[in-house]
Amino acid sequence: MLVVMKHNASEEDISGVVGTIKEMGYDARPIPGGPRTAVGLVGNDGRADAGRLQGLSGVLEVIPVTQAYKQVSREWREEDTLVTLPNGTVIGGRDLVMMAGPCAVEGERQIIEVAHVVREMGATILRGGAFKPRTSPYSFQGLGLDGLRFLARAREESGMVVVTEALDPDGVDLVAEYADIIQIGARNMQNYPLLRRAGRSGKPVLLKRGMAATIEEWLLAAEYLLAEGNHDVILCERGVRSFAKHTRNLLDLAAIPVVRSLSHLPIIVDPSHGTGLRSKVIPMGRAAVAAGADGLMIEVHLDPPHAMSDGAQSLYPEQFGELMDQIRVIAKAIGRDVTAPLEAVSPV
Amino acid sequence: MLVVMKHNASEEDISGVVGTIKEMGYDARPIPGGPRTAVGLVGNDGRADAGRLQGLSGVLEVIPVTQAYKQVSREWREEDTLVTLPNGTVIGGRDLVMMAGPCAVEGERQIIEVAHVVREMGATILRGGAFKPRTSPYSFQGLGLDGLRFLARAREESGMVVVTEALDPDGVDLVAEYADIIQIGARNMQNYPLLRRAGRSGKPVLLKRGMAATIEEWLLAAEYLLAEGNHDVILCERGVRSFAKHTRNLLDLAAIPVVRSLSHLPIIVDPSHGTGLRSKVIPMGRAAVAAGADGLMIEVHLDPPHAMSDGAQSLYPEQFGELMDQIRVIAKAIGRDVTAPLEAVSPV
Amino acid sequence: MLVVMKHNASEEDISGVVGTIKEMGYDARPIPGGPRTAVGLVGNDGRADAGRLQGLSGVLEVIPVTQAYKQVSREWREEDTLVTLPNGTVIGGRDLVMMAGPCAVEGERQIIEVAHVVREMGATILRGGAFKPRTSPYSFQGLGLDGLRFLARAREESGMVVVTEALDPDGVDLVAEYADIIQIGARNMQNYPLLRRAGRSGKPVLLKRGMAATIEEWLLAAEYLLAEGNHDVILCERGVRSFAKHTRNLLDLAAIPVVRSLSHLPIIVDPSHGTGLRSKVIPMGRAAVAAGADGLMIEVHLDPPHAMSDGAQSLYPEQFGELMDQIRVIAKAIGRDVTAPLEAVSPV
Amino acid sequence: MLVVMKHNASEEDISGVVGTIKEMGYDARPIPGGPRTAVGLVGNDGRADAGRLQGLSGVLEVIPVTQAYKQVSREWREEDTLVTLPNGTVIGGRDLVMMAGPCAVEGERQIIEVAHVVREMGATILRGGAFKPRTSPYSFQGLGLDGLRFLARAREESGMVVVTEALDPDGVDLVAEYADIIQIGARNMQNYPLLRRAGRSGKPVLLKRGMAATIEEWLLAAEYLLAEGNHDVILCERGVRSFAKHTRNLLDLAAIPVVRSLSHLPIIVDPSHGTGLRSKVIPMGRAAVAAGADGLMIEVHLDPPHAMSDGAQSLYPEQFGELMDQIRVIAKAIGRDVTAPLEAVSPV
Repeated sequence: MLVVMKHNASEEDISGVVGTIKEMGYDARPIPGGPRTAVGLVGNDGRADAGRLQGLSGVLEVIPVTQAYKQVSREWREEDTLVTLPNGTVIGGRDLVMMAGPCAVEGERQIIEVAHVVREMGATILRGGAFKPRTSPYSFQGLGLDGLRFLARAREESGMVVVTEALDPDGVDLVAEYADIIQIGARNMQNYPLLRRAGRSGKPVLLKRGMAATIEEWLLAAEYLLAEGNHDVILCERGVRSFAKHTRNLLDLAAIPVVRSLSHLPIIVDPSHGTGLRSKVIPMGRAAVAAGADGLMIEVHLDPPHAMSDGAQSLYPEQFGELMDQIRVIAKAIGRDVTAPLEAVSPV
Repeated sequence: MLVVMKHNASEEDISGVVGTIKEMGYDARPIPGGPRTAVGLVGNDGRADAGRLQGLSGVLEVIPVTQAYKQVSREWREEDTLVTLPNGTVIGGRDLVMMAGPCAVEGERQIIEVAHVVREMGATILRGGAFKPRTSPYSFQGLGLDGLRFLARAREESGMVVVTEALDPDGVDLVAEYADIIQIGARNMQNYPLLRRAGRSGKPVLLKRGMAATIEEWLLAAEYLLAEGNHDVILCERGVRSFAKHTRNLLDLAAIPVVRSLSHLPIIVDPSHGTGLRSKVIPMGRAAVAAGADGLMIEVHLDPPHAMSDGAQSLYPEQFGELMDQIRVIAKAIGRDVTAPLEAVSPV
Repeated sequence: MLVVMKHNASEEDISGVVGTIKEMGYDARPIPGGPRTAVGLVGNDGRADAGRLQGLSGVLEVIPVTQAYKQVSREWREEDTLVTLPNGTVIGGRDLVMMAGPCAVEGERQIIEVAHVVREMGATILRGGAFKPRTSPYSFQGLGLDGLRFLARAREESGMVVVTEALDPDGVDLVAEYADIIQIGARNMQNYPLLRRAGRSGKPVLLKRGMAATIEEWLLAAEYLLAEGNHDVILCERGVRSFAKHTRNLLDLAAIPVVRSLSHLPIIVDPSHGTGLRSKVIPMGRAAVAAGADGLMIEVHLDPPHAMSDGAQSLYPEQFGELMDQIRVIAKAIGRDVTAPLEAVSPV
Repeated sequence: MLVVMKHNASEEDISGVVGTIKEMGYDARPIPGGPRTAVGLVGNDGRADAGRLQGLSGVLEVIPVTQAYKQVSREWREEDTLVTLPNGTVIGGRDLVMMAGPCAVEGERQIIEVAHVVREMGATILRGGAFKPRTSPYSFQGLGLDGLRFLARAREESGMVVVTEALDPDGVDLVAEYADIIQIGARNMQNYPLLRRAGRSGKPVLLKRGMAATIEEWLLAAEYLLAEGNHDVILCERGVRSFAKHTRNLLDLAAIPVVRSLSHLPIIVDPSHGTGLRSKVIPMGRAAVAAGADGLMIEVHLDPPHAMSDGAQSLYPEQFGELMDQIRVIAKAIGRDVTAPLEAVSPV
């Protein structure tokens, strides 16, 4: 932490800052410069509170230097984290993983059919919401427990593993019973009781980036999971808020190489929510792979015009197939591959 | 809802849109124009899903016309909502209300002392966090249940009423036992299970605006509370995310007159979080009153440099007194007053 | 400038940074810390280029410490700058100044009439665009030279001084002939040839904040003016771009106290462009005064529904009068006043 | 244009809107709906001013339906615009074009050498700034006319064509004498006198997106060029302002497919300014190609640590070669190719 003093800060001001830093339990190192002095706070363990220094007399600004996150950082762990799932899919390795399925589980038959379709095209992880966070209280809120049961059934029939969202701490336990990956949605990225419970769930967690979250805040949210002992965390970029409204969100693909350099956690991209427009999902899915994503999460619906939510951003199955074909070529350009398709599950 | 067709949309495309609208249960009214045709969806009850229309052939864009919120709107209820609290304070009437206190409850004596100080200066509602949502898992997370007990004690001794935050559904019940107003923080504005529980708590709710929430999303979050039967909702503007970093958040004071015209709910402003800088709290507090806010929420600490959180944005008591003096003058300019100070509680 | 090294930066990396800093002509001071080392660049005259250090091996990030602006800063000049105009109006002193008039000059009679009306209500500076920067090439672009002539005529008749916008370097010379203050619009805040010419014009300059400009970029744009020898610079906050669309721009009133602490230049606010909505201009005008602005710039039109541009954000004259009455009270709350109305000019 | 009336708008309010629309010279079509009425403005030629309607009694909001741009739209011209340059390079066709070179021209030898290097790797267009718009007046501002001469010399020696920026109307004429493409920078996207002059220059124009420009504003800026008769316009996405600061700007790659569907103009991407960080240029360059860009503009410097500007975002030549190799593979995935390298120019 660096405390930058005002041009006209007095010796007394500087002593005040040095004294406060010592009182906080750290070392202070004044750095006299040309036009102004700065005081370094040395030995910061990530808990030093800038607030105690910001308001002091003569202080211009306090600049954080040490990152507040620890276990998620590449400095803590150099090698990439690999998340291995029950059906053998590995997230974060050389091969890209594909998660696909409808926005919401709408019925048993619907989810089983779509599972078969996307599995054949190369997806190994089935997505589908049972609990839907909706902006309006009057919108369809998901099938709840029934949705979870249908997902479990689709897994059994297709051999895919399942990712689905939990909305509150008790929901985490429920989702953990039925699913293979617990999703934390963008709106809940800083819902700390939810993160804590997911951190103790024993299941991998997919953590979506919040709509206005910086990379540091996102990594700190992941830190909540690791701090509870859960190291199987997958980050998911899904677009951020912006002044521009030509897409539903502004997909921040540069987050991929940035996260890669700061953290060992795998990162995937959701171009469906990232654009909100079916016709933009394929180009942005390709772009995400080219930028180095470890996988994609894609909304696919057998009949998008009749989807109960997010129909406008759901791909038709043949579009999903087209995307798969294209990313297989693109992955090669950077020495990667797409996970091999699962074999069909033989009926017992 | 208005479906704008592409320039070159065919008759078939238009029929497709009309058919889908009818299938959704609404009336369709094509509006041929000069360069392009639009199709109006008539009879929207707020549940019509734009998604079903957006991806159809020939559609350029779908423009929502009906607002999705209902009970929070001025069209639903014309007169201002007044929230009356146990000590007689009324939020949303002619008089401005002042909420003040530390960011976090740090101890019994601390919260009681600061309650006496701010009450004497004119605050009638005591703020103080017992459960603190913190960006880092390694930061101070609040005193929890002890914090609630200390707040209750301070209320008893000072005659003020208490507002404090709940972080999860179970926490709502706990907070409701001890506090007079349940605060939903900015990070949780779209935490729907939390909103639902608060909507059933029987206590007034202070709903902070999310960091990247539009006015419509904010009002829809409030709609979750009203939809559960709770009409005592107070909105709180506290700044939004922006590219500019000279303040912690960008305080959006224009939200005040905008919310007033759209909704009957009272709206207050938190310039402490809105700026994050002690020296900017007073001017922005004044500005909020001038813009028409129904009250302010201000962080005040007896010893800001030693505050356990948010010290840099906490006012010294004498600064709070200065702010009170100034807003009493400003309120007059728009025909309002500041709530009269509470009398001291006589010890039993 | 502080160069923060990666956790695992080698001794060689650190030497590389130290060597580059010396090569750049500055002193380097390594600051070993707990988890990581930083290297301070000492003696920065504001020209040190972070770019040369950012890409070096082992560098995590480069943090600017010295501000790049000089002459605009309060560290350069402690006392407030006062801009004195030919009719005696002083901007930046104890009294607030009021600039008012139509968005665009639409005709000689129109501008003269509105000048009389707003002068009687207390405005001393007449605004009105002769050259209008319009988003679409097909919109009304202003009356040009005729507009300037009509403004000059209105000044003569009313005793007010005139502020109007210049769009290109040659336009600066033209505007300087007819007007008392040259306005640089938001779109041109970083139009450097325009700034340079305005800096040599001999006339005060009103510099609007760019739509996505940080405070530092805005002050650096002003620095271009001062660097050319023009010290009569007035800053004007007019709202910035944001994800929220309930107002045309997001008026950033906290910029007022922030600019005040960083710079000696006066700052006024334009709530007409800042909100884009007539009904929000009055509350935000009041708020700007409460936040400490040195004045307001308000669009007033005698017949807003027939205005040739920006009618939706233009006040009716009686609304302007109401605003004047309210801010006279608010100014008192912070020990200020509104400039006394000009006396009528007696016809020769 | 659609005028949405308030819930409680009276018959008189609706008549007022209808009357105003007719007065403006258009047809009005009231559309009674369930909860509220809307009035369609029919026959909009792109000049109808929403401002005249927004402030009328009973009006809730005015929604633009017709886009304000014309000649740039795909509805105006269905086939892709191809821009053909003197050395045979075609922008906007099947093959991707590569623009490369230093941020600034620093000397004759420097620019000639780098031209040879990037030409051999496959670039056919040489970039390099002679006039540099710099945030601070104290930063290096470019070599000016000498820079242009050196660029012309490099063109002659390498066979590449040259793109370089003009900062003001007179500069356009000067740049047009020496360069093959006139660049309009992000800060000047809405500098209309500059756009008009470039529109009359007879040379192709590269129009960078402004830092806070919506797609519509960007296309309208291009419309200024086409309205002056210049149809050889290339759009360049280079990142926008955002709350997130992990990259210099937030590269908005979804703008590529969005622009493609709205306009016939070619669009390229500048990942150097888009990220500001050398290590992120390659992944984002790949992603831009995968998203469908017609080409890239890349900063390459033979000695980035000693670059006079933007060294931190300049690639080393071998990195540029690596990027070229990768995008040749990626282009195949979408049925495209990279322009064949130019043959060396034989010395006369």
